[in-house]
Amino acid sequence: MLTLHHLNDSRSQRILWLLEELGVPYEMRRYQRNPETRLAPPELKAVHPLGKSPVITDGDIRIAESGAIVDYVIRRHGLGNGQPAMMPAPGSADYEVYNEWLHYSEGSAMLPLLLNLYVSRLKEAGAPLYPRIDSEMANHLGYVDGALKGREYFVGNSLTGADIQMSFVGDMAKAFNKLGPYPSDPYAVSLGTGTLSDGLFRQLPLGVMGPGSRPGRRGKGLGDSLSPPYLA
Amino acid sequence: MLTLHHLNDSRSQRILWLLEELGVPYEMRRYQRNPETRLAPPELKAVHPLGKSPVITDGDIRIAESGAIVDYVIRRHGLGNGQPAMMPAPGSADYEVYNEWLHYSEGSAMLPLLLNLYVSRLKEAGAPLYPRIDSEMANHLGYVDGALKGREYFVGNSLTGADIQMSFVGDMAKAFNKLGPYPSDPYAVSLGTGTLSDGLFRQLPLGVMGPGSRPGRRGKGLGDSLSPPYLA
Repeated sequence: MLTLHHLNDSRSQRILWLLEELGVPYEMRRYQRNPETRLAPPELKAVHPLGKSPVITDGDIRIAESGAIVDYVIRRHGLGNGQPAMMPAPGSADYEVYNEWLHYSEGSAMLPLLLNLYVSRLKEAGAPLYPRIDSEMANHLGYVDGALKGREYFVGNSLTGADIQMSFVGDMAKAFNKLGPYPSDPYAVSLGTGTLSDGLFRQLPLGVMGPGSRPGRRGKGLGDSLSPPYLA
Repeated sequence: MLTLHHLNDSRSQRILWLLEELGVPYEMRRYQRNPETRLAPPELKAVHPLGKSPVITDGDIRIAESGAIVDYVIRRHGLGNGQPAMMPAPGSADYEVYNEWLHYSEGSAMLPLLLNLYVSRLKEAGAPLYPRIDSEMANHLGYVDGALKGREYFVGNSLTGADIQMSFVGDMAKAFNKLGPYPSDPYAVSLGTGTLSDGLFRQLPLGVMGPGSRPGRRGKGLGDSLSPPYLA
């Protein structure tokens, strides 16, 4: 059975959402960050040398890296009506768009957000870097916003792994209060149109995407847990 | 025909290497960074809204993001002996390893290197971030080194897209002089074992991976061109 090695307040929440969305049977092993350092516990190193989460194991297969996990889970376990569900048909033009989003999320869009997260710890000493960080955040968030304009989903007409993989970008941007100029919030788009029922969503372990951060109910949001050690 | 939109001193060099390695017919359109700001020229925005490189166009297909491009080029154009060349058979366990490296390179391994690149501009003001950046660089470079131990290639027994995609990590780490403790340099491994002839390599446009940075001839290396605007 597929096992998700789940760390609280981590990108693993995305995989959990995907598994629930697909209705794939899975086992979850929970790992807790050190409440003081916010670092992942050493037990995760026994699962994968990097000691990070998400990691999935599935028989002899072990995969780290969110984009690769989303891709694998949907290819291997997301079959519906004889066709892969939550992804475009391999070989189609939409498939390339889908795959680009899977890579783009962590390979490009997250960089200025993570730079912002780290450099903000330096307070005013980080000032020389902000023009560049801000312009790159605007470049990426503007691009995502443009790509979503008039659309419900990143690819095609239904929820795919691209929406789930990209949700974290909106999540982080919202935590930094950077989404103001960009109405097409990828987090709200993907979550708002997802089929995961509100009831089920509430049952997910509180993580980055806790119920408080759902569109319209952002009272106490994900921002609480976002601090540099969160990246561990 | 496949067109590579190539920016000097950029990750696009990786795609050029792949195309040459596969012997895929392609056209290259060159773009030059502004010599003062090191930013990409505005013409790239006409190719892709982000204004970055590499981008490829191939008929109706347009793909940005190195990992997605490597994946596409090998799937679509890398056929040899009726099987995809430079990638493991889809569905095999090795395929998942391969795909993880494609994502891992830019999705994880590059982050501490890029943080280091940016924060180094702050000189001593960035000091509070170095313990974290250094430990994350060590975590990732140590992991890569361990994964390459006793191996010639990242996956299986021949050069794949994973080697090419990961080469940039070794490239950057070398530019920062961070590879000392890690003998399994992913750049040297992949380039040293690649089939691209030395003569051909010398003909590639001088970029991040210029001839000076080849194993054993690192006199004036790639480091020269690595500065934050390089990331544009």
